[in-house]
Amino acid sequence: MKNSERPIGVFDSGLGGLTVFKELRGLLPGENLIYFGDTARVPYGTKSPEAVIAFSKEIASFLIGRKIKLLVVACNTASSLALEEVRRISPVPVLGVIVPGVDAALAVVQHGGRILVTGTSGTIKSRAYSKALAASGSRMQVMEKACPLFVPLVEEGWCSKPVAAAVAREYLLPFRKKKIDALILGCTHYPLLKKVIAGVMGPRTRIVDSARAAALAARAELAGRSLLNAGKRGRYEFVVSDAPERFSALALRLLGIRTGKVKVKRF
Amino acid sequence: MKNSERPIGVFDSGLGGLTVFKELRGLLPGENLIYFGDTARVPYGTKSPEAVIAFSKEIASFLIGRKIKLLVVACNTASSLALEEVRRISPVPVLGVIVPGVDAALAVVQHGGRILVTGTSGTIKSRAYSKALAASGSRMQVMEKACPLFVPLVEEGWCSKPVAAAVAREYLLPFRKKKIDALILGCTHYPLLKKVIAGVMGPRTRIVDSARAAALAARAELAGRSLLNAGKRGRYEFVVSDAPERFSALALRLLGIRTGKVKVKRF
Repeated sequence: MKNSERPIGVFDSGLGGLTVFKELRGLLPGENLIYFGDTARVPYGTKSPEAVIAFSKEIASFLIGRKIKLLVVACNTASSLALEEVRRISPVPVLGVIVPGVDAALAVVQHGGRILVTGTSGTIKSRAYSKALAASGSRMQVMEKACPLFVPLVEEGWCSKPVAAAVAREYLLPFRKKKIDALILGCTHYPLLKKVIAGVMGPRTRIVDSARAAALAARAELAGRSLLNAGKRGRYEFVVSDAPERFSALALRLLGIRTGKVKVKRF
Repeated sequence: MKNSERPIGVFDSGLGGLTVFKELRGLLPGENLIYFGDTARVPYGTKSPEAVIAFSKEIASFLIGRKIKLLVVACNTASSLALEEVRRISPVPVLGVIVPGVDAALAVVQHGGRILVTGTSGTIKSRAYSKALAASGSRMQVMEKACPLFVPLVEEGWCSKPVAAAVAREYLLPFRKKKIDALILGCTHYPLLKKVIAGVMGPRTRIVDSARAAALAARAELAGRSLLNAGKRGRYEFVVSDAPERFSALALRLLGIRTGKVKVKRF
């Protein structure tokens, strides 16, 4: 197999990372993709850094064993807590979703503007986005808000129910009057609540989706290494650590993705 | 150590089983208790039977190694899916929460009455309560409803927020007009939402809490084997598979339980 034909590995705590998968598929239709969802241990957002690091390294090793050419850590919590540890064991480049998300926010916010980062408890507690924003040299005013109920809301398929708006108001209404220029959807599940979140924040606030930004970063990374695959139509493979049928059904219902047969790899 | 002085082991997917712990402590103040919360892999409710069985057996083995005299499976999902498998490897009696919950419901409902079972997706899909109700020989009309968002709502500490009532209405309002005689709280987290659930169902419906019933069953089991501990005040030990500080903080905030130092056992 030519190096460029090797698959891109994508992993997430569950199915949220499929938003990244979908962007990769749309942007790079020739690439072969292998997606891993850690459905036996989802969610990561409330777990300790030690646990998230251990889980992420296990999954990275599995994907590296599948001869990937690039590893995309689609999970914000794992990107926040485990990226360095995964890079240490990986012979191929490893991309997270934090820096792409920050870059996407900086592209739409004026110097000195206000950015609200939303995410799981783990992501927000790590302050990964704040640190990346600070490291970018931009002088933004950064606020952060953990929204732990968003993931189960999405997994319940309630994205357009009034309850979703009620939960979003509970978390975000206090920020509406703070004149936020951009809100970063710092969790791969959150793009599915984009409309609801935009509704609470009002028209002033741009909603920044790191899934699209991560796919663009992956393309740039591969182009820089001459590893883009010129193939016509990529092959897709899905592997989970538990409950493959549920994963397949939710992928179709929430994201319109037909997975075909989903494999199981237990740790 | 005398046999009666050996601890009772209690396990749950996370902290919900503390509702059972609290009832045991109240009812049997002389007993030594060891509680295990599988916080690295919580929740169990959306996971496959194979995964729940494997996790439950690991935890049971750990507690059996700690010389318990009785094992209480406080998690409804594990009770529904893994009780037989845990019994097969246990040298001590194993109690689940399903049969006690059913008995408690039967105590308040007339022959031919209507019972609504609520629980996680895993519990409801297993039909464990329906089967136990059928096996009891009572001729009840049984309905079942999975309420997956209740657990994250409780874990968020939002039990008395308007959002909790909105979520409860979404799940349960269609059942209000069905003249339900008893609603079984078929998940250890749900007692924390008892008021909200009772509010949606109206005064006709008795709310049945399996935590109390499970503690009564444990007392009966120990009494029958002359294993009750006449000690004055039991010792309590808490072990989790991840994030002990978070567990400790939530135990205090949600249930008023002071855990002291929580140990960590990773699998």
